Amino acid sequence: MNHQKLILVTNDDGIYAPGLKALVAIARKHGEVVVIAPNTPQSGMGHAITMTQPLRLHKIQAFDGIESYECSGTPVDCVKLAKNVLLKERNIDLCISGINHGSNASINIIYSGTMSAAMEASLENIPSIGFSLLDYSFDADFDASSDWISQIIGHVLHKGIRLSKLLNVNIPRLGRKEIKGIRVCRQAEGNWVEEFKEGKDPRNETYYWLTGQFVCQDDGEDTDLFALSNGYISVVPSGHDLTIHHAIVENKDFENLLP
Amino acid sequence: MNHQKLILVTNDDGIYAPGLKALVAIARKHGEVVVIAPNTPQSGMGHAITMTQPLRLHKIQAFDGIESYECSGTPVDCVKLAKNVLLKERNIDLCISGINHGSNASINIIYSGTMSAAMEASLENIPSIGFSLLDYSFDADFDASSDWISQIIGHVLHKGIRLSKLLNVNIPRLGRKEIKGIRVCRQAEGNWVEEFKEGKDPRNETYYWLTGQFVCQDDGEDTDLFALSNGYISVVPSGHDLTIHHAIVENKDFENLLP
Repeated sequence: MNHQKLILVTNDDGIYAPGLKALVAIARKHGEVVVIAPNTPQSGMGHAITMTQPLRLHKIQAFDGIESYECSGTPVDCVKLAKNVLLKERNIDLCISGINHGSNASINIIYSGTMSAAMEASLENIPSIGFSLLDYSFDADFDASSDWISQIIGHVLHKGIRLSKLLNVNIPRLGRKEIKGIRVCRQAEGNWVEEFKEGKDPRNETYYWLTGQFVCQDDGEDTDLFALSNGYISVVPSGHDLTIHHAIVENKDFENLLP
Repeated sequence: MNHQKLILVTNDDGIYAPGLKALVAIARKHGEVVVIAPNTPQSGMGHAITMTQPLRLHKIQAFDGIESYECSGTPVDCVKLAKNVLLKERNIDLCISGINHGSNASINIIYSGTMSAAMEASLENIPSIGFSLLDYSFDADFDASSDWISQIIGHVLHKGIRLSKLLNVNIPRLGRKEIKGIRVCRQAEGNWVEEFKEGKDPRNETYYWLTGQFVCQDDGEDTDLFALSNGYISVVPSGHDLTIHHAIVENKDFENLLP
């Protein structure tokens, strides 16, 4: 028998999300799977970590024959606990996060707990992939893309990712035969145009509840949003360097300031 | 009288943090200041947003003569509420976040609520600056750098930031006369080597508490960490595109995968 690959699986929708179940079912074909996921939904947690509170970790029976844990923290906390406590003595070959219920294309990568968990693993030098399906519903159809996801996982396990440790993979909401293929692309420019729904609670106190609409500001044909809207799975090689390198020399005049 | 600039001030250490008070005192010399900050410390919240809960916003008297609000949400929520509710009808000339009690240089930008608040404003096309002092203590000395911070704010208000909307500014923990100047640089490669302190709570249940040590993996002399360790204030022009652009063509073989 070959060396079994060790695959860490996590998400941000919580340990009981159907998207996680679907990802575990795919991952187990590729090696030994260990699952650690938040015990509550953690969408929109970004790269949050828990510093001022203790974390709880419980072994549970969530997936038949798969070592699984639920954690009281954020998605990033889950990855840190996996790397530094649960799997401290072992080499993790791959971390996969998802399948997220909803898009993490374009600027959504910034807000996404799914992608932050994968990014945290990539910071630990573990090849990592975040998977997201463009369907926010709880009972989204994760079957249609399962063979594609399996191919991507296999490719990363055996060929690796070049010049990056992190892939942001988004999947269009299409049937099995409608997905046209894969496009490797860049993160589109876009943002959220927000509104807050203002209301009164039962005690007559004002509250504000976030809502909003995503707006694409990018007409490039090399973006994740373009690929998705044309029926392709988007794969964006991603990193963690937020520097705008070509802006450094353009802003050198700040060095002339004196107090 | 000139057109008064409108400056939004926020932070992640909470409305009562001394770093915020110091930043407000500097900002008010440059225009009309509106403060909105979390009602509890929110360090390490990254780009978290609150989607499943209503947010509360209360006008308070925190700073003499300054319009101020405390918010139940994250730093990013604060900026969204400022842009879409409090200052909906107005043009915000600048958003400043901080002064953070502790470093946000290198990879810390990813975890930082201070920087995420500033980044959120930059996504709304508002020039934004996050300020952090390399001193984690509550009673850190924010006076030593106040004239430098004032210079940077004035420069951004009058000259803008080229090819970027966001500056990550970190300040060494030095006396007024020891700070050598400003360096415009890139985010250093570094990460946190984590440990979890394992313990037992009063009910004899196991907990894990995050701790760790930052490790610089970058010996470049053009980085924020290099500038800081040599007595300079670091200024990193930053953005929100996580794509590793040169990795796109190198990973085109993913496009050959078939289910």
